[in-house]
Amino acid sequence: MRVPIVVDRGSDVPLHRQIYEGWRDGILARRFRGGDKVPSTRELAGALGLSRATVTAAYEQLSAEGYFETMHGAGTFVCRELPDDAPTVGRKALRPAFRAAPVALSRFGQRLGTAYAPQPSGTGLIDLSRFGPDLETFPLRLWRRLLVRHLRDAQPPLFAHGGDAGGYMPLRRQIAAYLARSRAVHCDADQVIVVNGSQQALDISMRLLVDTGDEVALEDPGYPGARQLALAHGARVQPVRVTSDGLHLADLRGSPRLVHVTPSHQFPKGASMSLARRLELLEWARRRGTVIIEDDYDSEYRYSGPPLPALQGLADGVPVVYVGTFSNVMFRGIRIGYVVVPRELVAPFTRAKWLADRQSPLLDQAALAVFMGEGHLERHVRRMRRLYRSRREALVGALERHLGDDAVVHGDAAGMHALVGFRVADVRERARRHAVRMTSADPYYLSGRSPNEFILGFAAIDERTIVEGVKRLALRVS
Amino acid sequence: MRVPIVVDRGSDVPLHRQIYEGWRDGILARRFRGGDKVPSTRELAGALGLSRATVTAAYEQLSAEGYFETMHGAGTFVCRELPDDAPTVGRKALRPAFRAAPVALSRFGQRLGTAYAPQPSGTGLIDLSRFGPDLETFPLRLWRRLLVRHLRDAQPPLFAHGGDAGGYMPLRRQIAAYLARSRAVHCDADQVIVVNGSQQALDISMRLLVDTGDEVALEDPGYPGARQLALAHGARVQPVRVTSDGLHLADLRGSPRLVHVTPSHQFPKGASMSLARRLELLEWARRRGTVIIEDDYDSEYRYSGPPLPALQGLADGVPVVYVGTFSNVMFRGIRIGYVVVPRELVAPFTRAKWLADRQSPLLDQAALAVFMGEGHLERHVRRMRRLYRSRREALVGALERHLGDDAVVHGDAAGMHALVGFRVADVRERARRHAVRMTSADPYYLSGRSPNEFILGFAAIDERTIVEGVKRLALRVS
Repeated sequence: MRVPIVVDRGSDVPLHRQIYEGWRDGILARRFRGGDKVPSTRELAGALGLSRATVTAAYEQLSAEGYFETMHGAGTFVCRELPDDAPTVGRKALRPAFRAAPVALSRFGQRLGTAYAPQPSGTGLIDLSRFGPDLETFPLRLWRRLLVRHLRDAQPPLFAHGGDAGGYMPLRRQIAAYLARSRAVHCDADQVIVVNGSQQALDISMRLLVDTGDEVALEDPGYPGARQLALAHGARVQPVRVTSDGLHLADLRGSPRLVHVTPSHQFPKGASMSLARRLELLEWARRRGTVIIEDDYDSEYRYSGPPLPALQGLADGVPVVYVGTFSNVMFRGIRIGYVVVPRELVAPFTRAKWLADRQSPLLDQAALAVFMGEGHLERHVRRMRRLYRSRREALVGALERHLGDDAVVHGDAAGMHALVGFRVADVRERARRHAVRMTSADPYYLSGRSPNEFILGFAAIDERTIVEGVKRLALRVS
Repeated sequence: MRVPIVVDRGSDVPLHRQIYEGWRDGILARRFRGGDKVPSTRELAGALGLSRATVTAAYEQLSAEGYFETMHGAGTFVCRELPDDAPTVGRKALRPAFRAAPVALSRFGQRLGTAYAPQPSGTGLIDLSRFGPDLETFPLRLWRRLLVRHLRDAQPPLFAHGGDAGGYMPLRRQIAAYLARSRAVHCDADQVIVVNGSQQALDISMRLLVDTGDEVALEDPGYPGARQLALAHGARVQPVRVTSDGLHLADLRGSPRLVHVTPSHQFPKGASMSLARRLELLEWARRRGTVIIEDDYDSEYRYSGPPLPALQGLADGVPVVYVGTFSNVMFRGIRIGYVVVPRELVAPFTRAKWLADRQSPLLDQAALAVFMGEGHLERHVRRMRRLYRSRREALVGALERHLGDDAVVHGDAAGMHALVGFRVADVRERARRHAVRMTSADPYYLSGRSPNEFILGFAAIDERTIVEGVKRLALRVS
């Protein structure tokens, strides 16, 4: 018998796999033809010096996949049923001779913008570029305990698909009560829809409300996640400037489909929208039929006076979609946020969430419901409010002391970051040379250019390091 | 002093909140006017018989929110700065007199279809309507241990936003290796993108590839999740019938943008696509420039012969998007799936995932990487393969025994469900009367009508109960 295939005992590939691939590739390349007689497992095992079981395993797979066919009494043959035009595909499998035509992206795909490139962490660096919460102070042990409790006790329902795409009802009730207490949001639990963080809330909102060519009004500067989504949805973006008491309403033109605002603590300029401005915006939206997306991303952190009540609670008769997230008050890795929608949007929103990814993980939702129900969330927020306030004061104090008029801090005493304008032409160069990382505000402006502004995150970095970072920025580049 | 507001000591609302709301509502309703003098905290506390601290807390909030303004030396006044057109909003806040115009949905929103309504569980019912895996046999204790290990040891990176929107790299490597071993999928780890289950894989694929009006070819009958998405994206759906060796290629017309197929185990008919058919489909797709979405949702479970290799691994030069999920091999609640994309789609897919919801939860990804790396996943799949095979045999055997020619089982010995055609006109009535729940195949057909077919899930139900359920179906309704 002429040995039809070869095997390599030194290879990592199991021998039965080598036999399988040898035949498959040979058939696809037409080295073997439909109807060719195949040696028996005994013959081939003998010729290759292998156990018969090894060859049999490969033959069974080849038969199951349709490469071999067995005629009772006559033996095994290469299958005749391979299609006439298979060889082109087959040969390519061995020698990729041509390139496929490039895949044409949808218009959505073409409008996605550039790929996300995460910043690597540096060493020896003072990193003021992170806007997220402090992880060191989060009660991870408690959180673990709650997760473990649910992992142990509440098995089947939490491990199965659970009821409602809108989320785990006990959590939705907790969120509704929390928002009523802390934000004067008026809603029932079934208007709360649990999503994977605020980005998904924005994405689903735009999918439901924005058609290609629609106008969407966005704060300028503003949150890039909202702008990138609006552009990907094919919206015409209408930039609205931001003043010290919020959105500059005079910039609003026409009747945009929606306006995205961050009234508690404008991102990134830091202004709180005054009550007067809030009422004006609501009245304006009511007249135009514009939906307001109220993105309350870090409303928990105000360091002077109680938080302002949400637009949502003032907005009778004006559709407000209220967006919040736990990733700023807990930790970034928790992919749970929520959206409070007008009653008429509950069904479409739930359906869109179901079509997008079914539902958010139930186990995390269940642990979070207890975390809130037992008061841990609000306790943690209160502690963080004190901590972040001190850190903000350290930042602002150090900027005054070391840079004086050369640094202007925008916005209210609130949140987890401050927008700082520098009157130092070479501040970028200073940061680079003295190993301070800061986020330029340039990409937060629709023009892509800020007046030498930077967004300094202070929540996740201790006071001493904050002060040291500012001192470095005050050092000239010699 | 005339007492301007009233409080109710019997109410659950805290007194400071009642004071706050009394003033706020009065101002918004114009019972108090801008410039009105406000009694001092001492005066109001005296008049209401409350502690001064209670009143002060309310006044501070009213000042912070802009309802009150303080003029040094002159006292506190209702703020003059409320906008002229505020009263309409304000009055509505008290008496919702008009209804807002209904919110206009986007075309996507209008095409969503009807809301998702989960089926409640019944008692005393034999439930053959669930297609999911068996939860009882999943090594939950081990899974918990892995989660807890990561909860304990690997804190900061897993609790922060982690590197890449495409997923946790050790998991992506495990998936690539697993797919190479078990499915002959050829890819590098960076072509694997982790998503929240296969539904998100399909959604992002369609967002990237389908424009309104594009043709999308779908199996008929087929997976409703894919059809609903295609319709929501505004695709023109081209139904392709399914035969015993897979897609009926002669039904394909024109050059659809994409074709969604379930070649391992057609959903719901259960056919495996033959090798010949696979090669034909690839060649057809290559000529038309059509992208193939290969949805390999339960390929792990074949009960005769080894699994067929994926289209993806045969498809040199043809763009195949390979979709898989862990919710069928582990448990439904794990919201982790994956998609393997051609190299040129890695960047758009990662970007779209980032815009949709940033990334899938890292903690679950990390635990899963170890679960796979230590061989637990494949061990579990092997055990389930034996278990589900027995359950399928119990179902098929009972149908033969008790219904004979009145029940036709379609498809191969594979998967977690079987499509069964009944030649019993009143089978629905029998199921209802004898408390057997089955899923009608009607909505799986584009026409909405099946030839009296039902999809029977056998994976999550023991053999004795399966047999009992079938016996009940054999009972006439007297």
